Amino acid sequence: MTLLADLLSTVFERRYLRPSSRRRLDDRSLDDLANDLVGSAGETSGLKLAEDILAGYEELDDDAKLAFFKKITRSLDLNPGAVRSTLDAYESQATKATYRNFLAAAEPRRQELFRRLNRLPGATGALVRMRADLLRLGGRDNELAALDLDLRHLFASWFNRGFLVLRPINWESPAHILEKIIAYEAVHAIDSWDDLKQRLAPDDRRCFAFFHPSMPDEPLIFVEVALTRGIPGSVQAVLESGREAMPAEDADTAVFYSISNCQAGLASISFGNSLIKQVAADLAAQLPDLKTFVTLSPIPGLTKWLTQESHEWDHAASDDMRNTAAHYLLNAKAKGGLPFDPVARFHLGNGAMVHAVHANADVSDKGCQQSGGTMVSYLYDLEKVAQNHENFATTQKVLASAAVQAHADASAIAVAQER
Amino acid sequence: MTLLADLLSTVFERRYLRPSSRRRLDDRSLDDLANDLVGSAGETSGLKLAEDILAGYEELDDDAKLAFFKKITRSLDLNPGAVRSTLDAYESQATKATYRNFLAAAEPRRQELFRRLNRLPGATGALVRMRADLLRLGGRDNELAALDLDLRHLFASWFNRGFLVLRPINWESPAHILEKIIAYEAVHAIDSWDDLKQRLAPDDRRCFAFFHPSMPDEPLIFVEVALTRGIPGSVQAVLESGREAMPAEDADTAVFYSISNCQAGLASISFGNSLIKQVAADLAAQLPDLKTFVTLSPIPGLTKWLTQESHEWDHAASDDMRNTAAHYLLNAKAKGGLPFDPVARFHLGNGAMVHAVHANADVSDKGCQQSGGTMVSYLYDLEKVAQNHENFATTQKVLASAAVQAHADASAIAVAQER
Amino acid sequence: MTLLADLLSTVFERRYLRPSSRRRLDDRSLDDLANDLVGSAGETSGLKLAEDILAGYEELDDDAKLAFFKKITRSLDLNPGAVRSTLDAYESQATKATYRNFLAAAEPRRQELFRRLNRLPGATGALVRMRADLLRLGGRDNELAALDLDLRHLFASWFNRGFLVLRPINWESPAHILEKIIAYEAVHAIDSWDDLKQRLAPDDRRCFAFFHPSMPDEPLIFVEVALTRGIPGSVQAVLESGREAMPAEDADTAVFYSISNCQAGLASISFGNSLIKQVAADLAAQLPDLKTFVTLSPIPGLTKWLTQESHEWDHAASDDMRNTAAHYLLNAKAKGGLPFDPVARFHLGNGAMVHAVHANADVSDKGCQQSGGTMVSYLYDLEKVAQNHENFATTQKVLASAAVQAHADASAIAVAQER
Amino acid sequence: MTLLADLLSTVFERRYLRPSSRRRLDDRSLDDLANDLVGSAGETSGLKLAEDILAGYEELDDDAKLAFFKKITRSLDLNPGAVRSTLDAYESQATKATYRNFLAAAEPRRQELFRRLNRLPGATGALVRMRADLLRLGGRDNELAALDLDLRHLFASWFNRGFLVLRPINWESPAHILEKIIAYEAVHAIDSWDDLKQRLAPDDRRCFAFFHPSMPDEPLIFVEVALTRGIPGSVQAVLESGREAMPAEDADTAVFYSISNCQAGLASISFGNSLIKQVAADLAAQLPDLKTFVTLSPIPGLTKWLTQESHEWDHAASDDMRNTAAHYLLNAKAKGGLPFDPVARFHLGNGAMVHAVHANADVSDKGCQQSGGTMVSYLYDLEKVAQNHENFATTQKVLASAAVQAHADASAIAVAQER
Repeated sequence: MTLLADLLSTVFERRYLRPSSRRRLDDRSLDDLANDLVGSAGETSGLKLAEDILAGYEELDDDAKLAFFKKITRSLDLNPGAVRSTLDAYESQATKATYRNFLAAAEPRRQELFRRLNRLPGATGALVRMRADLLRLGGRDNELAALDLDLRHLFASWFNRGFLVLRPINWESPAHILEKIIAYEAVHAIDSWDDLKQRLAPDDRRCFAFFHPSMPDEPLIFVEVALTRGIPGSVQAVLESGREAMPAEDADTAVFYSISNCQAGLASISFGNSLIKQVAADLAAQLPDLKTFVTLSPIPGLTKWLTQESHEWDHAASDDMRNTAAHYLLNAKAKGGLPFDPVARFHLGNGAMVHAVHANADVSDKGCQQSGGTMVSYLYDLEKVAQNHENFATTQKVLASAAVQAHADASAIAVAQER
Repeated sequence: MTLLADLLSTVFERRYLRPSSRRRLDDRSLDDLANDLVGSAGETSGLKLAEDILAGYEELDDDAKLAFFKKITRSLDLNPGAVRSTLDAYESQATKATYRNFLAAAEPRRQELFRRLNRLPGATGALVRMRADLLRLGGRDNELAALDLDLRHLFASWFNRGFLVLRPINWESPAHILEKIIAYEAVHAIDSWDDLKQRLAPDDRRCFAFFHPSMPDEPLIFVEVALTRGIPGSVQAVLESGREAMPAEDADTAVFYSISNCQAGLASISFGNSLIKQVAADLAAQLPDLKTFVTLSPIPGLTKWLTQESHEWDHAASDDMRNTAAHYLLNAKAKGGLPFDPVARFHLGNGAMVHAVHANADVSDKGCQQSGGTMVSYLYDLEKVAQNHENFATTQKVLASAAVQAHADASAIAVAQER
Repeated sequence: MTLLADLLSTVFERRYLRPSSRRRLDDRSLDDLANDLVGSAGETSGLKLAEDILAGYEELDDDAKLAFFKKITRSLDLNPGAVRSTLDAYESQATKATYRNFLAAAEPRRQELFRRLNRLPGATGALVRMRADLLRLGGRDNELAALDLDLRHLFASWFNRGFLVLRPINWESPAHILEKIIAYEAVHAIDSWDDLKQRLAPDDRRCFAFFHPSMPDEPLIFVEVALTRGIPGSVQAVLESGREAMPAEDADTAVFYSISNCQAGLASISFGNSLIKQVAADLAAQLPDLKTFVTLSPIPGLTKWLTQESHEWDHAASDDMRNTAAHYLLNAKAKGGLPFDPVARFHLGNGAMVHAVHANADVSDKGCQQSGGTMVSYLYDLEKVAQNHENFATTQKVLASAAVQAHADASAIAVAQER
Repeated sequence: MTLLADLLSTVFERRYLRPSSRRRLDDRSLDDLANDLVGSAGETSGLKLAEDILAGYEELDDDAKLAFFKKITRSLDLNPGAVRSTLDAYESQATKATYRNFLAAAEPRRQELFRRLNRLPGATGALVRMRADLLRLGGRDNELAALDLDLRHLFASWFNRGFLVLRPINWESPAHILEKIIAYEAVHAIDSWDDLKQRLAPDDRRCFAFFHPSMPDEPLIFVEVALTRGIPGSVQAVLESGREAMPAEDADTAVFYSISNCQAGLASISFGNSLIKQVAADLAAQLPDLKTFVTLSPIPGLTKWLTQESHEWDHAASDDMRNTAAHYLLNAKAKGGLPFDPVARFHLGNGAMVHAVHANADVSDKGCQQSGGTMVSYLYDLEKVAQNHENFATTQKVLASAAVQAHADASAIAVAQER
């Protein structure tokens, strides 16, 4: 084998969980195994236990999974007495030993269980799928919420930005990755491989995804980008089939028109912020003529808010729709003072600003339903995102261009309120 | 750029910390920045802070580093009051919110600091070097021991076996990796590139290292292996220059004759156990005629123990030396009942057994000094390591072959004690 | 950039012919440029000329291409006078100089033209496409046949087996390669990406292609393989959608059920022989339980021959069909004594033997039409192919299993002829 | 195995010639085998024959190799009668068949032998080594000159620029490649791995090599480059140990200070021209501030010419030395009017010009001996090389800067001649 093959076969070494077909584990014993694993002194027997637990888990039905979650939540729960006594000891004399004892007591043993399971090659993906099950099955159960917070705490550490790898996704990417892009696209559905090729192959289209080295076949999040001259007025224009591609060098604008999270098990672990900024920075370095980095985003909460607030919506006039949408984005607030619109919260929280509002920009059924066809462009000014982000975090004030501000002021709702 | 280059340039994307040459930070402000980073709401400003902290840290001298460690140890310490009150709240009502609050309070904010620093590409290696500094400068300071335990806790999670990558190291490996193998070899020094080639290039020599994807240029630990017929009687025979190499297919034995940890900053994070077992398993799969997996290990504690115990050592007779070494390995105990010899503790703890003791097996100055030239082979029987490991963990009994047992029984010390 | 990216970006460096959009070349000047290129002393100006010629050629319509072919055929033709005089000089005194002069004179300058064009990165693929044009447009023109033989002579040298690279094609291959597999499959059409996945992704399916390093995006020829227990009786069974895949380790037979050439411009440059044997050897090494390597091949000439020979064909009885097909394969001869069936000629010429004949084995329209649904398995016995090949080359005798021989003997045609 | 490993293990698949240890071939039979190979109808038996020939050849001593060369030169020689008769036939009727027959007859069968040997994976390198033997052993033998011209004709086609791959060589390159760089450096010897690192690792040093995909472990030619501000006055300044490296971005000049051919068997196959120009173009694209591309070249013929022409050389005054060297470069001619200096011929033939002459620029023994310590910088102006090359090819006039022209005019020799 060559150097290159040597290196590569191990960089992204495939990791298989061999199902322990010889024996069928009941859920009771799975919990026992978990307790054994946390209690075991050494790594050797631990790997065998980990393999049995993860393979056994895969064979459980939903009820058994739920039962397993409940059992380990209880059997490996925090021991408040131990927390208190080790804390007392540490306070009376702060030494290496008293601190180590406190650290051990203050962390529920469930976290140690997951860390030990994760020693098994390939386990990271299995644990992400396990959390997806937990979120799906656990509902609002308070006990299981603790289990979920344990996993989330570990995942925040393991899926730290510093460990992620940004990869371009294009028409030369492996098919088994591309079929996942088709499956995971959450904003503007991809109908077919031809449709996918239209989004990846032309010189004025780009796509990037974050991967984790331990899950090389699974994108975590991806963003689709159109390189354009000026900001396009509608997503249908961006996705128009049969359009002629433009040389990338001729573009002055990068439009982030779709961002999709791929892993249900990584809910609440945020990647989108880093992804947009890194992609913007990379594109700026590659294509020096790119000056403007904007999104073309849905306004998912608009119709809902209008209904809730009993405002009327004049479907006839697109001017009015644009004004209404601008007003909504700038002034509609959720409890706590943050913007009502979830997508607005995400981009404003990243340090972007409301740059332009477009009428008739998503005329699909979904687009008409949720926002009367309006869409919005958030602007990422790389020089200003850090400052914008700080301002927004402090003041919750929605930063918008003068044009959007004018639309908002002109909206019937604003006018009515003024009177 | 091609698919492959696309993929690869990002798999192992180089991550540089640009030193913020514009400004020199004093250590006070570095601590302030650290507090800002932990307190900041968002990721955007965080990356800038992280970059300033890590770049500023690199410019500190040892005194300033020590001062920085002390400051963050205190300013980001545990708040026992908060631990107690959140624990009380959680006990009175276990909800998602009360549990989250407890988790946050029970973890010193230092850990969050390191996690946030680690968001910066390239930071993992910088944090490992930071811990090396801490271990070097911190001594037995109780306060700093807490800081070290914090880092160790994070590293144990980040350098989890499931995240490591095993790579063969051979004469086709990149020179910048190979020069680190020369530098880090801790057991039998590598004198020159020619010497290195003798250990890597022949068909009957192998070397493997663990890497972490975020530190692709830095081996974490490596093992050197000789493929032989039978167990060689001395390390000089293994390393003899000018010896004729054997086709790997003709070997029946794999001898692990050197294991070296490379990163001072990863002290107490154990990899060696996994490394030996995975390498043994991989070699067994590649070369089906390999039946025996043994080490050729130093006995670093022997002379020290003999002196300490006031035993005499007869340098004249190698038979006696072998008997004495066997006795030592089987019977010399440290406090707590574990073997006195640190290398013995490591291999027995991994599930290996004492297989053979060799006289005149390391006739270098170091070898003569530490063990009168004796060495030992620990046997890794892949079928039995898990069971052996459990037995040793439970009973601390040293498992040895009949031959070694006989040598031990025949030793003058044993005979004297028997009388 | 990393080592790996460095290496790889250049291994398969993309090579683009920039169309010289500034100027439109007429076909006259293209011929002039070609003469300039062959006459030019140095490489520097040559690359520019080569670029202009290849870019100019791409813009020609078919008539202009044909005119260009005719012009260079004449203007760079062999000079018989020079051949004779240099040969005389060489015969009168065999020196380095006289031999060099003869070599130069005996090769038409057209070949030097193509070698110089090929100095341009990316030109190899362009020249292959140029020959495809030539074959398509040139027909039976005697002059152009010489031009074609020149290209074929060069291609036979450039696409020498020693320069080709065998790559597995699977569901992790790049999409732009896979879409070519769909396009080029010539035997059993691939309907969709789902169909393709069925042929590539299951553990008991394999596909391999030859590539040339200078045309990394273009498969030259590929073979599809089914791993089975026993020889399947029909291609529909092999391709059945919804069938359950088998672990590759359980297979005892590798069935080569489709081989497709991809490049019209490489007609008469044979790869199939090497491909089958190398794939068989590689599979044998990977999967030691594979014992039988057979094709499941069409019998494209059967119906045609029956019609031509005025034999009758009894569609009702599949036994009869099998007998008839066996008789045809063993006894139907083309002019010169080789088998009438082109696929039989190919496999027997490779050293395979006729192993089994299957009735109702391809019930597609095409299969029924060309061979009444019969198919044939040629056996590649790796130990015997060289000897079989020699025997066949010498004697033209068709080697067949006893079973096939029996079927042939039992056929109505054979019985009739015997009478 | 992963996609990447799949791809890569085959891109640069290692190709081994297994020595046919079972049998020792005498040289007679080797010639017989060669004749068999050329005569054999098919590829299958051919590969076996090729393997036997190449493996047998490796075991021959020099005398036997020479005998083998002579035998195949004769037994596979051109048949002038066949050339004449096929040419007559072709002239009387130009058809595909008559042309094919002529092509076959006009090429000595030795070329077909080498093409067939080359079908064997790994054979290309073996054939290059074979030609190195031939050049070493063949001397001025007229018969063997023909064999050499046959190989050279094939190699010119196989090692066509379009098939070569440019790779950067740096401190992250594989050690087995780097040890060849040490071995092959022909201009300024590399003393040690430390010396090598000084030439590869600093940010202001670069090295590039051409490779052929079928010989991935063997550089064909490499060039070493220093990135500097201004043109350095001596090679000792370039190679000074302990000098401080400069950021590559700060450089305005790329100095090609060493070019070495690596393969004796590829003598007379020119790569240097392409290498310099491609490296210059690549560096210009990467580092836009690089404006000047020059060599720092030896003047190997100067002392020899002065002696031959009985000119005196004043070692005391470096001004005079510079003038003398300038005069020599501009005016000293070989037979036929080309420059006397071989390095001058190479660079001027590439389209470079004489840019500057440096006194005391190579004060090594070799430098003092061959040119009194003078060196010369040839300038590659990428905009002008094609035109310069044409001019030089047509007129043989040496293009030089005004400064060098002035030095030449001021030289004592010129002054004396003028009188």
